[in-house]
Amino acid sequence: MKTTALIMAGGRGERFWPRSRKNMPKQFLSLTDDERTMIRLTVDRILHLVDMEDIYIATNKDYKDLVKEQLPGIPDENILCEPIGRNTAPCIGLGLMHISRKYDDAVMMVLPSDSLIKDGERYRELIREACDIAEAGDNLVTMGIRPNYPETGYGYIKYIEGEKRGSAYRVDKFVEKPSLDKAREYLASGDYLWNAGMFVWKVSTVIKEYKAFLPDMLKGLNVIKDAIGTGDEDKVLGEVFPTLESISIDYGIMEKAGSIYTIPGDFGWDDVGSWLAVERIKSVNEDNNVVSGNAITIDTKDCIIEAQDKLIAAVGLKDIVVVDTADATLICDKGATADIKKVLEVLRAGDNTRYL
Amino acid sequence: MKTTALIMAGGRGERFWPRSRKNMPKQFLSLTDDERTMIRLTVDRILHLVDMEDIYIATNKDYKDLVKEQLPGIPDENILCEPIGRNTAPCIGLGLMHISRKYDDAVMMVLPSDSLIKDGERYRELIREACDIAEAGDNLVTMGIRPNYPETGYGYIKYIEGEKRGSAYRVDKFVEKPSLDKAREYLASGDYLWNAGMFVWKVSTVIKEYKAFLPDMLKGLNVIKDAIGTGDEDKVLGEVFPTLESISIDYGIMEKAGSIYTIPGDFGWDDVGSWLAVERIKSVNEDNNVVSGNAITIDTKDCIIEAQDKLIAAVGLKDIVVVDTADATLICDKGATADIKKVLEVLRAGDNTRYL
Repeated sequence: MKTTALIMAGGRGERFWPRSRKNMPKQFLSLTDDERTMIRLTVDRILHLVDMEDIYIATNKDYKDLVKEQLPGIPDENILCEPIGRNTAPCIGLGLMHISRKYDDAVMMVLPSDSLIKDGERYRELIREACDIAEAGDNLVTMGIRPNYPETGYGYIKYIEGEKRGSAYRVDKFVEKPSLDKAREYLASGDYLWNAGMFVWKVSTVIKEYKAFLPDMLKGLNVIKDAIGTGDEDKVLGEVFPTLESISIDYGIMEKAGSIYTIPGDFGWDDVGSWLAVERIKSVNEDNNVVSGNAITIDTKDCIIEAQDKLIAAVGLKDIVVVDTADATLICDKGATADIKKVLEVLRAGDNTRYL
Repeated sequence: MKTTALIMAGGRGERFWPRSRKNMPKQFLSLTDDERTMIRLTVDRILHLVDMEDIYIATNKDYKDLVKEQLPGIPDENILCEPIGRNTAPCIGLGLMHISRKYDDAVMMVLPSDSLIKDGERYRELIREACDIAEAGDNLVTMGIRPNYPETGYGYIKYIEGEKRGSAYRVDKFVEKPSLDKAREYLASGDYLWNAGMFVWKVSTVIKEYKAFLPDMLKGLNVIKDAIGTGDEDKVLGEVFPTLESISIDYGIMEKAGSIYTIPGDFGWDDVGSWLAVERIKSVNEDNNVVSGNAITIDTKDCIIEAQDKLIAAVGLKDIVVVDTADATLICDKGATADIKKVLEVLRAGDNTRYL
């Protein structure tokens, strides 16, 4: 059976402001020591498993040119532009329609475009196993990540220790982003994994799930499917897609579906979720700083300094993130990176869109 | 008797890097809410007491054009360019020669170009009194500043409580920059003032002091004096000035001289000695930040942010100084401003002179 992939690349990456901008979000930036961009790394990572013409990119029209530029091998018709952001269930559904139109059935992997995988070899090994499990029956397979701290920003997957199939465990349930107390409980219990938003399933399997749990959405998606490749494609997509319910695949399907397996993904996953991730993925110097660009540090420790051509002089700093760009400089305490979005709120409120 | 002034404007203002630069040091910048530069404020402050043609500026040739530009009323021949920095005794001596050549005798005030006076009216009142005391006899008069914390970066003046003359006290002794313990002692004793480098005396009086305590220097200064106004002036200055002993007026004369008076200067003096001074002299907002330019602050307190056109976004910061300029940005903990000079050392060591 053919293996296909849908890469989700419509995010805005606001937590990486000011480098990530509305017109150049995180997935199109190089954030690691590798000069390739996040989305390019995502594609390159699966090329042994999927043919280029079977890779679909879900994004929006603002980023279509960036996708074409950074992924020249992807066929134009595989770049799927959502007319409006409607959460993951409609987005995955759109990819599903394109793939089901092309193949009677196929294995489909759904991947974020902006996470980092340190061990690509192990990743491919486990993704291949996930494909096998998906192909063998009507199984939804998800790659879980073993938590090492009580993160409250991810959903969790509870698996059943006793029901193992190769590297995979049968899933007991999907749970939404927990409180800190709950997250600590999950971490302590040992049978919860982080939901990293990586799924593998057969097209035929997941269509059955849409039919069972999101029947109205599937009807809309089928209308869109019928217009694909016709002169009406854009018009129908623009009319129907915004009417689809804005719901996540986790909430819409995964929390309800029956046969779900999860594979603990021990391949060095990182969602590069904020500037703090930089010190996990880039080289740290003897003062425990991550420094790039034209910077001088004096008595400065545990800082992240992303300078460019302009000289950044850091004196006596500790636990500070400095990110310089051509028109804006962020200086943020490490404990306050979640508040970067408040800067964007102030900018929006002031109609100061040039910095967004 | 004529009143004259020598304004010392040869400093580099390194503690105000990156705004203060080798080719545009602190005294030529506006650092207060007033748009006038520090040296302009210094001149304007004494114009009721001294005629423009009797104001001399001691600087060096790098800053001659800046002086002419910022102080267009000062005669060209009153801009005295030291060929090399030789501390304050030779510098004041050079001014002394120019004034003594013009007037048989005169009252001379010596003033820094980069300190701030909040109450100009009170300042003029006390300076006028200092002039009277200087004119009345062979008295050296210095404006002292009542200490309000044990600063170790200034010299101190011990006065004799019982020997008062108007607002002035007779000086017991000048003491050099103390240790912290000593500074605490001075502060507690109540009869020590900070030496703010502001002096008033008759030309004839101070020449006697040079003769007594710096006789070789006076000889050299007289050679320079004889060449003033001749075609050889620059040549002689360039040859003789560098041979003069590099010694401060405090150490060379004030610590040794006899009849010294000091007036406690209660006119809101500030030496604007580092970026920390900015919060004493500029408006502080409700978060106790001093913010100027294009800046957004989120959960940021007790910070100094000097932005320009480029957006500076400060998130979760406390006690941090941020100074942005066209080619360099300083980010410095308030407790580490003394280490700004280490940045300049690194730049010099790397031959990176464009940022100095």
